[in-house]
Amino acid sequence: MPAGELRHLPQSSPPNAAEFDEEEAWVWSQIKAEARRDAEAEPALASYLYSTILSHSSLERSLSFHLGNKLCSSTLLSTLLYDLFLNAFSSDPSLCSAAVADLRAARVRDPACVSFSHCLLNYKGFLACQAHRVAHKLWTQQRRPLALALHSRISDVFAVDIHPAAKIGKGILFDHATGVVVGETAVIGNNCSILHHVTLGGTGKVGGDRHPKIGDGVLIGAGATILGDVKIGEGAKIGSGSVVLIDVPPKTTAVGNPARLVGGKEKPAQHEDVPGESMDHTSFISEWSDYII
Amino acid sequence: MPAGELRHLPQSSPPNAAEFDEEEAWVWSQIKAEARRDAEAEPALASYLYSTILSHSSLERSLSFHLGNKLCSSTLLSTLLYDLFLNAFSSDPSLCSAAVADLRAARVRDPACVSFSHCLLNYKGFLACQAHRVAHKLWTQQRRPLALALHSRISDVFAVDIHPAAKIGKGILFDHATGVVVGETAVIGNNCSILHHVTLGGTGKVGGDRHPKIGDGVLIGAGATILGDVKIGEGAKIGSGSVVLIDVPPKTTAVGNPARLVGGKEKPAQHEDVPGESMDHTSFISEWSDYII
Amino acid sequence: MPAGELRHLPQSSPPNAAEFDEEEAWVWSQIKAEARRDAEAEPALASYLYSTILSHSSLERSLSFHLGNKLCSSTLLSTLLYDLFLNAFSSDPSLCSAAVADLRAARVRDPACVSFSHCLLNYKGFLACQAHRVAHKLWTQQRRPLALALHSRISDVFAVDIHPAAKIGKGILFDHATGVVVGETAVIGNNCSILHHVTLGGTGKVGGDRHPKIGDGVLIGAGATILGDVKIGEGAKIGSGSVVLIDVPPKTTAVGNPARLVGGKEKPAQHEDVPGESMDHTSFISEWSDYII
Amino acid sequence: MPAGELRHLPQSSPPNAAEFDEEEAWVWSQIKAEARRDAEAEPALASYLYSTILSHSSLERSLSFHLGNKLCSSTLLSTLLYDLFLNAFSSDPSLCSAAVADLRAARVRDPACVSFSHCLLNYKGFLACQAHRVAHKLWTQQRRPLALALHSRISDVFAVDIHPAAKIGKGILFDHATGVVVGETAVIGNNCSILHHVTLGGTGKVGGDRHPKIGDGVLIGAGATILGDVKIGEGAKIGSGSVVLIDVPPKTTAVGNPARLVGGKEKPAQHEDVPGESMDHTSFISEWSDYII
Amino acid sequence: MPAGELRHLPQSSPPNAAEFDEEEAWVWSQIKAEARRDAEAEPALASYLYSTILSHSSLERSLSFHLGNKLCSSTLLSTLLYDLFLNAFSSDPSLCSAAVADLRAARVRDPACVSFSHCLLNYKGFLACQAHRVAHKLWTQQRRPLALALHSRISDVFAVDIHPAAKIGKGILFDHATGVVVGETAVIGNNCSILHHVTLGGTGKVGGDRHPKIGDGVLIGAGATILGDVKIGEGAKIGSGSVVLIDVPPKTTAVGNPARLVGGKEKPAQHEDVPGESMDHTSFISEWSDYII
Amino acid sequence: MPAGELRHLPQSSPPNAAEFDEEEAWVWSQIKAEARRDAEAEPALASYLYSTILSHSSLERSLSFHLGNKLCSSTLLSTLLYDLFLNAFSSDPSLCSAAVADLRAARVRDPACVSFSHCLLNYKGFLACQAHRVAHKLWTQQRRPLALALHSRISDVFAVDIHPAAKIGKGILFDHATGVVVGETAVIGNNCSILHHVTLGGTGKVGGDRHPKIGDGVLIGAGATILGDVKIGEGAKIGSGSVVLIDVPPKTTAVGNPARLVGGKEKPAQHEDVPGESMDHTSFISEWSDYII
Repeated sequence: MPAGELRHLPQSSPPNAAEFDEEEAWVWSQIKAEARRDAEAEPALASYLYSTILSHSSLERSLSFHLGNKLCSSTLLSTLLYDLFLNAFSSDPSLCSAAVADLRAARVRDPACVSFSHCLLNYKGFLACQAHRVAHKLWTQQRRPLALALHSRISDVFAVDIHPAAKIGKGILFDHATGVVVGETAVIGNNCSILHHVTLGGTGKVGGDRHPKIGDGVLIGAGATILGDVKIGEGAKIGSGSVVLIDVPPKTTAVGNPARLVGGKEKPAQHEDVPGESMDHTSFISEWSDYII
Repeated sequence: MPAGELRHLPQSSPPNAAEFDEEEAWVWSQIKAEARRDAEAEPALASYLYSTILSHSSLERSLSFHLGNKLCSSTLLSTLLYDLFLNAFSSDPSLCSAAVADLRAARVRDPACVSFSHCLLNYKGFLACQAHRVAHKLWTQQRRPLALALHSRISDVFAVDIHPAAKIGKGILFDHATGVVVGETAVIGNNCSILHHVTLGGTGKVGGDRHPKIGDGVLIGAGATILGDVKIGEGAKIGSGSVVLIDVPPKTTAVGNPARLVGGKEKPAQHEDVPGESMDHTSFISEWSDYII
Repeated sequence: MPAGELRHLPQSSPPNAAEFDEEEAWVWSQIKAEARRDAEAEPALASYLYSTILSHSSLERSLSFHLGNKLCSSTLLSTLLYDLFLNAFSSDPSLCSAAVADLRAARVRDPACVSFSHCLLNYKGFLACQAHRVAHKLWTQQRRPLALALHSRISDVFAVDIHPAAKIGKGILFDHATGVVVGETAVIGNNCSILHHVTLGGTGKVGGDRHPKIGDGVLIGAGATILGDVKIGEGAKIGSGSVVLIDVPPKTTAVGNPARLVGGKEKPAQHEDVPGESMDHTSFISEWSDYII
Repeated sequence: MPAGELRHLPQSSPPNAAEFDEEEAWVWSQIKAEARRDAEAEPALASYLYSTILSHSSLERSLSFHLGNKLCSSTLLSTLLYDLFLNAFSSDPSLCSAAVADLRAARVRDPACVSFSHCLLNYKGFLACQAHRVAHKLWTQQRRPLALALHSRISDVFAVDIHPAAKIGKGILFDHATGVVVGETAVIGNNCSILHHVTLGGTGKVGGDRHPKIGDGVLIGAGATILGDVKIGEGAKIGSGSVVLIDVPPKTTAVGNPARLVGGKEKPAQHEDVPGESMDHTSFISEWSDYII
Repeated sequence: MPAGELRHLPQSSPPNAAEFDEEEAWVWSQIKAEARRDAEAEPALASYLYSTILSHSSLERSLSFHLGNKLCSSTLLSTLLYDLFLNAFSSDPSLCSAAVADLRAARVRDPACVSFSHCLLNYKGFLACQAHRVAHKLWTQQRRPLALALHSRISDVFAVDIHPAAKIGKGILFDHATGVVVGETAVIGNNCSILHHVTLGGTGKVGGDRHPKIGDGVLIGAGATILGDVKIGEGAKIGSGSVVLIDVPPKTTAVGNPARLVGGKEKPAQHEDVPGESMDHTSFISEWSDYII
Repeated sequence: MPAGELRHLPQSSPPNAAEFDEEEAWVWSQIKAEARRDAEAEPALASYLYSTILSHSSLERSLSFHLGNKLCSSTLLSTLLYDLFLNAFSSDPSLCSAAVADLRAARVRDPACVSFSHCLLNYKGFLACQAHRVAHKLWTQQRRPLALALHSRISDVFAVDIHPAAKIGKGILFDHATGVVVGETAVIGNNCSILHHVTLGGTGKVGGDRHPKIGDGVLIGAGATILGDVKIGEGAKIGSGSVVLIDVPPKTTAVGNPARLVGGKEKPAQHEDVPGESMDHTSFISEWSDYII
């Protein structure tokens, strides 16, 4: 991604309301420009791009339309879902600001993400996450049967299963996303990157607080399973395929099945970067190998 | 789940036919009451609840309708599938009794399952399992192309891939369910709980008996892979992310990649509870850690 | 599979163009005969078999129709996709020859594959792979937005996520297929067998060549995760659930999390067969156990 | 229509129950034979013929399936309508005997009707009439909102508007059928033939008995409008485009706008044949011309 | 219709804005009560009634949803149309007041109209007219291609063909409605009743003002054809099947083909009632007969 | 329509093959330009315009797509129909040249036709006629069941019922079109204009040649019914609502019910223009009135 193209993006502090409005407007204008360029280059796709993006007056409307059409079924009509999404986005601007932060996250962190519109239209992790946020809102409004029906549709359509009670921050990248499972009392902080087949699961049939709490800036590799009310500290990194049943301190790395801290339980190695943003999956290889063998 | 609400459920011995009819009637009446309550509280969902539950005269009809609409495609029409399911449920009462046992299993074991209707409508593991039972029946009736077509639809729609020849008992909870794969000669006993991404796979390209045999009351954690014609004994527990290529004795726990028995191959530790019912995923942590480190 | 039935299949060298035409004609005639037999035996399925196979004059048309109907959505119409697939198959015969090689692979290697038509109609791995090949062709023609839209539909419908830039050989079996993720710069050789939940992933957010290169005849077990620009040599075998961050030499086996070579890094054990074709998942068990314990 | 082909059909007296069962069985076997022949000759239509006819075990099931799929909408699902039709046909054999009589009527009277299956699949007048009979049954069972919803679908889909309270006999041919309107208190006898754009309308906004009563064997030409509680006697004929506000005696002909009796009010000319069966639309031309000029 | 039930309806003067709001609220409350009663009595219809009426917070939303679902096609999605209707109804209250007046007209004038909800859900004439009003609004806003696309859908779905430029008053009853054609420069006043197959057609290929102008309170019988820029005076009545090429003075009746005034061109008979409201189709019979014979 | 805009159109003699190719190319370029202009002016319609027109490379493809989507049903898929139409248009250029002539006819004769694309997308008479031509071709190829299935869909969707055996020339305008019925042995010449509700019907149940033969340039007014094997001479005009049972000589006018020749049977008045092209519906009023009264 050429630096100039994203000049608006890197900001040291989170935007305030006015800055956010400007940010959203800029991202939406980018999306429209991208879609217009693609529609011109590819007539076979133009109808799709007009219906999903170019005919809409705002990101909220585009997203509501797209999610309504993706998640509808013969018994849950697209018009009903469209209405539901539009009402949610209209009444709660934080939903849209979270969507913009997620678009930014995909665009900055995923080298395969070629444009904002690419993410908006095609990333099932992005779409599942936005739909989850609406389901979560319904859940907190005590509209639980509707939240659970939406949850079910998201799981059917995207193979992403996030319980509507789970709390998820902003700037999240669910990369590839197929098979992600996030339980009822899980919490995910801001600016995390979570790969496909990741489970934030419970400890069993006893109710109450029983799922992981993921701090800001965490990176969780593909196929990692984190179980129980454990705490993954800010900026920690969980290796692919790990099975984590322990707390992981901030800025440390846990790997293996069962997962252990790189550098040892007593003095685990600390990294400097924020793995949720840097997306460095494998630089711990050498340490790990040293540790294990 | 308040104890009073499920007073019918805990039974020491499996119900006989008359008891089962009563049991089914009671569960169905609960489902209708739940749906009626939800329809009143949430008008946006009422249409969905009436079409899937409240307009039907029996659990069989409701389930046939819901599966027919979920699994249909432009080349396999909902009316055809509805007919197929309705005929199967009408001609074989054991299919419905298994469905009731599965509803009970979800309701008792999964703290996130807030009602029977929640499971009936939204649990892809439950729905995939009921559809599988019909596919299995077709398979045993030598209607194999139809069984395989149904199998394919279940795998597309729910991302749950159970070969129609596989034998599955009653009281099964496929929790979250995305990514479950169960091979042709696999057998699953009664009252098992199987998490998402679990594979009961084969050993290779040679035909014949080549998939795992899972005893009653087994719990298999998320992402576990069990390969070959191995025997997982009654009440055994398989840790999340394990890769199991060995027999696991009754009431023991296998963990790790490759999986080993907690307590050692010679004298594995035995637990008292039935993990498939207690759903205790993580109490073996301390033993495991002790074992490994 | 009775040997006589597949007398055309085992060939020591890849077919030339004329041989391939004959091969394709023979496979297509088998598919039609199978479908005709099934339609007669099962009237409930006859409509499906006629619309998907028996009404078509060629494998290309049947496949285009089937993929168009499977992958369409309310915003990407089946007629548009049908046209797209038909044009691709018509203009590039190698797409069809690859499909025939994949059909052969499933039929020979998977004991659960009862017929060519079974694979053509029902194997989501087969269908995802054929659709990917068309997406890849679009990608190489710089029709990237269309390639990515197709990619997104494949990931939604089949839960198989293959980046359109990834290069995939012929004679591939994606068995079960749910959850497969193949990254942008990954390469897969000929005659590989890849089980479900396999990830060929990247190393992070830096662009460029960052995904695995899989040689010919490799077998990758269920749930294996291979990360980074590593080289898996010809005829190598990756155990189920392994997490591979290293090169694996030809004809060796890597297992475990993190994966290590069976027999040791210095002198890894070499096998004689081609695991991608023999599909022997578990014969390394004894060596592995010996190695680990 | 070759005489031999329909040897079962011309019967002087209506069949009794046993004869009817035989009759129905014979017609259904003809329909299946026709569909089988057409499916073999026309692969492009085979899927349609299997889904609508050849996959079904009885005329009732075929008709219920076909009507359910024709009349469904996004808010009235095909499975619901299929169920409704199937229940109606199963519980009331007279509905099926009427359908058979209507098939016979089309086959015998309409030279453009090339087969029973042609009528069953393609004649909107036939299909609207069968759906009306079910709506009428619902009406008499006081299930009026459902009857009216069905009425509305018939009017939308077939442009045939028959009030569910209207009573219609057997052996009816609604030829072409577009634009037919039959009011609430209208009655149509047996063996009538009614062309398109025919109105059996009311006299205004006062309720009660206000629509025409049509005797047995009447022929009503295209575009004729009959208004008010008038009586059209048995075997009468109404010319195309006539506007009839008067009683028409048996076996006489009314023509013109306003309609007058051919031969004069005092001694109208009587014909010998049964026009509803002979379908002779125009032999009165000479008399009419003589009469008028 | 019991007098008490409609106590709000008969009003000597048109309601002002506040009265109208009250009127609309009352009608909408009636519709909801009717739908609730029907949903309780008929579970098979409850899903339909909830999705179309009971889940909506206003008549505008219910109508927008119903029209969006009725008029959508695979290339004009229901969400797009729903949005279009909702925006139109929200921005122009006169559209809703006209809908209420039309509901009143059907309920008062048509003895077959058993409830407001019956008209709202099932009367194609009512639905076509409301959709036309939106198309007309688009036309006047110079959004002509969209208006014409909507026009085309109305003509396909309801077989009612009203050019979007045509001006139509309030309190209109299009009874049965199939086949109605209203040309570009036609004008229809308030409180008219127009039966099915009525044409308000042009004189030929010359543009400009070329279609009929229909005064307030006119009744046009089934199948009447009125051609050219003729004036049908207030309270006039046009007999069924008439072909009218002349001006018709207020409160007179024209019948026949070609139509002539009852009572003669010089001193046509005048009636006292308002035929568009009284719906008296046939009381002119005796005069007519006298006149003609 | 400004003269300049259609400078290509008025030609004294029918175009030869090369001229036709040029003509078609010009019309298609106009259609694309119109659609592009409309898509820019109306984003809500752009998706529709791209999918139906702008994404296609030829008029044949656009028309095949549009008809396939309009005429499909749950049992006759759009891909099947699209294929059918595309094959027909590709193999028989006369189908496309007839479509172009019909587009010209609508554009020149109907003042409400604002553009070629308006006709292509929205005129049900135009679309029904093109689909009929394909059905007719199938009929002549002895593919009668398929022709009749198509016939049935045209009648359901457009309420236009043209028997596939009927022969129809070029340059036809079916204006409004709802309710048109054309029987099996009817023939329609070139450059005719036929309004809605027109019937070209048979004389009864005897087979053989039994429907009207309409010469070139004939105009048939709304609701006219022509019955039997009568001959309507070139350039004749049939008044609206007429019931014609007699031959009508060239360049004469028949009106009334029953229809008589204007000017009398012996020396009917002759007009100079070609009514099918001039579309003058009403200039015979004065003569008619004179004649009758």
